[in-house]
Amino acid sequence: MSLGDAALFTDLYELTMGAVYHRERMNHEATFSLFVRKLPPSRSFLVAAGLEDVLAFLRDFRFSARALDYLRSLGSFPADFLEALADLRFTGTVRAMPEGTVVFPDEPLVEVTAPIMEAQLVETAIMNACHLQTMLASKAVRSVTAARGRPVVDFGLRRTHGIDAGMKAARAAFIAGAGMSSNVLAGLAYGIPPAGTMAHSYVTAFAHEIEAFRAFARAFPHGTTLLIDTYDTVAAAHKAATVAREMAARGARLGSVRLDSGDLVALSRDVRRILDAEGAADVKIFASGGLDEDEIVRCVEAGAPIDAFGVGTRMDVSADAPYLDMAYKLVRYAGRDVLKLSPGKVTWPGRKQVWRRRGPGGAFAGDVVALDEEPAVPDAEPLLRTVMAGGRVVEPGPPLAAIQERCARQVAALPADVRWLRDAATYPVTYGAGLVALRAALSAELQATEIGGRDGAR
Amino acid sequence: MSLGDAALFTDLYELTMGAVYHRERMNHEATFSLFVRKLPPSRSFLVAAGLEDVLAFLRDFRFSARALDYLRSLGSFPADFLEALADLRFTGTVRAMPEGTVVFPDEPLVEVTAPIMEAQLVETAIMNACHLQTMLASKAVRSVTAARGRPVVDFGLRRTHGIDAGMKAARAAFIAGAGMSSNVLAGLAYGIPPAGTMAHSYVTAFAHEIEAFRAFARAFPHGTTLLIDTYDTVAAAHKAATVAREMAARGARLGSVRLDSGDLVALSRDVRRILDAEGAADVKIFASGGLDEDEIVRCVEAGAPIDAFGVGTRMDVSADAPYLDMAYKLVRYAGRDVLKLSPGKVTWPGRKQVWRRRGPGGAFAGDVVALDEEPAVPDAEPLLRTVMAGGRVVEPGPPLAAIQERCARQVAALPADVRWLRDAATYPVTYGAGLVALRAALSAELQATEIGGRDGAR
Repeated sequence: MSLGDAALFTDLYELTMGAVYHRERMNHEATFSLFVRKLPPSRSFLVAAGLEDVLAFLRDFRFSARALDYLRSLGSFPADFLEALADLRFTGTVRAMPEGTVVFPDEPLVEVTAPIMEAQLVETAIMNACHLQTMLASKAVRSVTAARGRPVVDFGLRRTHGIDAGMKAARAAFIAGAGMSSNVLAGLAYGIPPAGTMAHSYVTAFAHEIEAFRAFARAFPHGTTLLIDTYDTVAAAHKAATVAREMAARGARLGSVRLDSGDLVALSRDVRRILDAEGAADVKIFASGGLDEDEIVRCVEAGAPIDAFGVGTRMDVSADAPYLDMAYKLVRYAGRDVLKLSPGKVTWPGRKQVWRRRGPGGAFAGDVVALDEEPAVPDAEPLLRTVMAGGRVVEPGPPLAAIQERCARQVAALPADVRWLRDAATYPVTYGAGLVALRAALSAELQATEIGGRDGAR
Repeated sequence: MSLGDAALFTDLYELTMGAVYHRERMNHEATFSLFVRKLPPSRSFLVAAGLEDVLAFLRDFRFSARALDYLRSLGSFPADFLEALADLRFTGTVRAMPEGTVVFPDEPLVEVTAPIMEAQLVETAIMNACHLQTMLASKAVRSVTAARGRPVVDFGLRRTHGIDAGMKAARAAFIAGAGMSSNVLAGLAYGIPPAGTMAHSYVTAFAHEIEAFRAFARAFPHGTTLLIDTYDTVAAAHKAATVAREMAARGARLGSVRLDSGDLVALSRDVRRILDAEGAADVKIFASGGLDEDEIVRCVEAGAPIDAFGVGTRMDVSADAPYLDMAYKLVRYAGRDVLKLSPGKVTWPGRKQVWRRRGPGGAFAGDVVALDEEPAVPDAEPLLRTVMAGGRVVEPGPPLAAIQERCARQVAALPADVRWLRDAATYPVTYGAGLVALRAALSAELQATEIGGRDGAR
């Protein structure tokens, strides 16, 4: 889409609600909280990401003439509302957790405070950006954890959900600790080092596999990687060893071989033995092919001689949890804290702060979600920071490498059993006394005024 | 990304392979097949989609100066290769199934024939586009089937995997038969009618729920929808009936109420009873909230009085199957048919045609995947058509509405038990005698030349 149409990247109801607010002269200050209601079964924490896109979207937010023409063509919006949209800019305040922060259910990742028209109209785009990148970073960190220090390379571009997802998957994986990506455009856009060598098609284009290897070695004589599973991994390991010796004889060096199918534990042992026996002991083994954190754990725990992992589709679509139960909810309007009571979706009212306490060794000891106006939690760090005020960015995001470092420090500070990939412990999150009291009071009030005794209303 | 950088939306290995082809003067004609290796457990057929994007990408394919500068900066590509990239355009032929065609494993959705450099460099983008839209259309058609004629509206934009996925999810759902989408930009881009009314935030912004309803009715007096689960669905149904009567009294009309949480079967019955009893019998009931085909089936089979379904996240991320085992494989190079033998990933060599036979009543009776050079299958329709030749589009895609109609006709022509949402029958796909013989011959040859007796090599 062209940048000018970005404001239409929204659910229609944001605009119908906006039309009513305009008609009713309801444009008081509103605060919306973006948070996750509950974790997917296989997650014990999430990694906040996507804020950079949110701030860029808000900074540039406006309705283009083309967008307004389209809305006019729908025939359901009054002219004065469309005129108001033409002048609309985002003038509000954004408080947010820095990207790379670990986050838990009910904790706002982002809080937007602005005239309700502005804060409402940006919902879909904000949610979409934070949902995608938080989900992907939270998934990718699991592969990085499983690899226990071995490099993880993002290989998922071809099966990400579209172009934007392909870019954000590389970015999220990098934040999570995957140092390289196959996505070349992510190299240009984000400075992520690109990685990759050859596909099976390359090998099959040659009359003989070893000729494909030799041609590659001629073109990339230093630290190249050969894909050795096109026909038979073990047979090709012998050929790779031959090529490694040929390369060494002329001062070049085979960097590694890549396994992409079959039983990676057994094959990596066979290949390691062949390489070691045939004068190629310094050639590393790179594994790929349908990997995720479970398969990486299996390889690592079996002691498979694998030096690095290429992780693709399952990481980049978050295959076991391809969406988060994330919501963007109104928590305060015109000085009045609000909540909804829908079954299973009751919200916490009011503007909030999240306080993170540390234990003696520096590990995170628990979070408190409190009203922003509640007193500071002693010896705890407030996680929400003001990053935009009056529609201007006041705290620019750090470089991507710094976000990656923050993520690594945050994950390292989690209690060890919360980091477990399976059967992890639940991180303790409690609620401020003021917040609990406010929700109880508002619930009781709504019960009386809006429901009127649930049984009676039925 | 800017259009000029689109050629970098690729895995790095496409470029490293390209560099070798350039160095080795290997640029003979190659054919690649895009196909799905096997269906996800919960699918019995797929709906081909994404071709429009493929053709636009190929038509505009070129490396911008900025892209070339970036590649140069990596320091690993020779200058003459980068010069060749600067002049590179896609000059090849594309044969493809029309969008909206039902497709099965091993059947090429797309076949690309071009000098290998061109055909290889476009792999990632082609795969990404077809993978996403085929996956999403194949998922969305399940909700449409489950709804048995009741309208299905795409509501998933906020949790699609990014911006491109949000656009393509609306498009794919429309192809599958969802007639409207909440995505306003999809209205502008594709002409899909946008749909939507209000969120819970809207209701909570008012002091009283009924005032929120009345304000909406004033702004949208004809056929509006009220969201009634913010506090208590049953209590709100009474308020909606009141508003419906107020609207009717002044010549306006409440179109429907929307349920978004709780037990939709039980609540829809309660709400229907209240509306009928309180003079709002013509108000329809719209259901949403975490729906997918399974929940729709539950509602429909229970006879719940639900008139339309809003289906969101689970449809738009294809939650139960968020990726397909799709591949783009070299099948022929320089006049030689090729295949790979990797465990679990053996390919079918050669350029192909897919023939679809019909039974007496017009229902599809089975497909034959054959070499393109094999004789026509009698009374069968060839599914692959030449849509691009010499890099130019020769068969432009039909309008989106026509694709939707094709999809509906295709799905209707499937054997009834193949259409089942659970425990569906397997559609019969067989292989041409020439194709089977070719694969056997090539496998034997590779076994002899490349593996040399698998046991011996170990």
